[in-house]
Amino acid sequence: MHKGELTRQRIIAEAAVLFNQRGFTGCSMQDVMEATGLEKGGLYRHFTCKEDLAVEAFKYSLDKVRRARFGEDTDISDAIPLLLYKVRQFVRVPSPLPGGCPIMNTAIDADDGNPTLLHLAHQAVQEWKDGLRAIVEQGIRSGEIKPDAQPGRIANLIVSTLEGALMISRLENTRHAILDAEETLCAFILDLAPNAERSPKPTRRELGTRTAQPAK
Amino acid sequence: MHKGELTRQRIIAEAAVLFNQRGFTGCSMQDVMEATGLEKGGLYRHFTCKEDLAVEAFKYSLDKVRRARFGEDTDISDAIPLLLYKVRQFVRVPSPLPGGCPIMNTAIDADDGNPTLLHLAHQAVQEWKDGLRAIVEQGIRSGEIKPDAQPGRIANLIVSTLEGALMISRLENTRHAILDAEETLCAFILDLAPNAERSPKPTRRELGTRTAQPAK
Repeated sequence: MHKGELTRQRIIAEAAVLFNQRGFTGCSMQDVMEATGLEKGGLYRHFTCKEDLAVEAFKYSLDKVRRARFGEDTDISDAIPLLLYKVRQFVRVPSPLPGGCPIMNTAIDADDGNPTLLHLAHQAVQEWKDGLRAIVEQGIRSGEIKPDAQPGRIANLIVSTLEGALMISRLENTRHAILDAEETLCAFILDLAPNAERSPKPTRRELGTRTAQPAK
Repeated sequence: MHKGELTRQRIIAEAAVLFNQRGFTGCSMQDVMEATGLEKGGLYRHFTCKEDLAVEAFKYSLDKVRRARFGEDTDISDAIPLLLYKVRQFVRVPSPLPGGCPIMNTAIDADDGNPTLLHLAHQAVQEWKDGLRAIVEQGIRSGEIKPDAQPGRIANLIVSTLEGALMISRLENTRHAILDAEETLCAFILDLAPNAERSPKPTRRELGTRTAQPAK
């Protein structure tokens, strides 16, 4: 990689952490200069303005989160095991960058502020939900999931519950809320099977053991 | 009310909106001065520093949200109808101040920043969850709710799902996610009755009609 491109990537990686922790308004180009040790000229050679850098930083953060937590690294093809896997990966893998989930941070931080960042956060949630909805639709077609299941509503429930629980877990600095979300969502997903027992409770073994790490 | 106290209350009300929209770091005392039309001396006569004002503003916002959305204005005493009422009030009543839910905003905004505000947001979530847990516990004692229901987990699920869905609804600028959360939570709550039919689907009448207002 060219030296200029290496510097650009290093700025993005450092800025991604700062923006994720402090938000768009709470992080200045001065903060990025201090974190990277670059002069003003060095920074503005690569990014025309703070928004330009924040957009690249958010894309970088999103890509890291998607790879780490969205459960895309699997060969599982059956709908119910795949939904369970996706929920568990999100719960178990901590955020790969400090400051928590960049989608939630940007959604909250930018909702009264930067429209470009808000649009990117919206797009990220949309793609996440579209992926989940497609799995449910495929499960209905293959007969693994009850025909009256509502794919859009299920996708909304999974994303809402995981993101809300993550917020509470960070606030409480324990993993209780996110592990409760995992257990409830897994029971809900198992219940989507046409022949599911009434409200089956997944066993501890199925759900794995609780750990005491704080939420990320 | 004394004139000084009236001014103090007016500053708090104006600052509550600014902090809710822009966050603690994103709103300066200068912004509050501009919004209130007060000089520096006038502002600092009432509040020693920005944190002092932000704390009062958050308490004010929280009080408004609690009165409007937490369903405390009811005589319902049976556990399941009361849980349904609380979920529906939160979904149907928009945030009484611009910028969305102050608990979520403060939780996200302050999680890498101001510990006093973070503590207040934590306390607010705790009280909200304690109230829901107490209803479930009372329902178990009175036989309205299955004895094996888990009060803490149910409280976590309700708060996580509502807050997460609210974030998504604001991001999408539609009410789909929050209305999906309402339907799923209401079905889940109805299913807590010992004699509940398998996954009963609440009717449109029970849930009311969807409205097209954007989420607040």
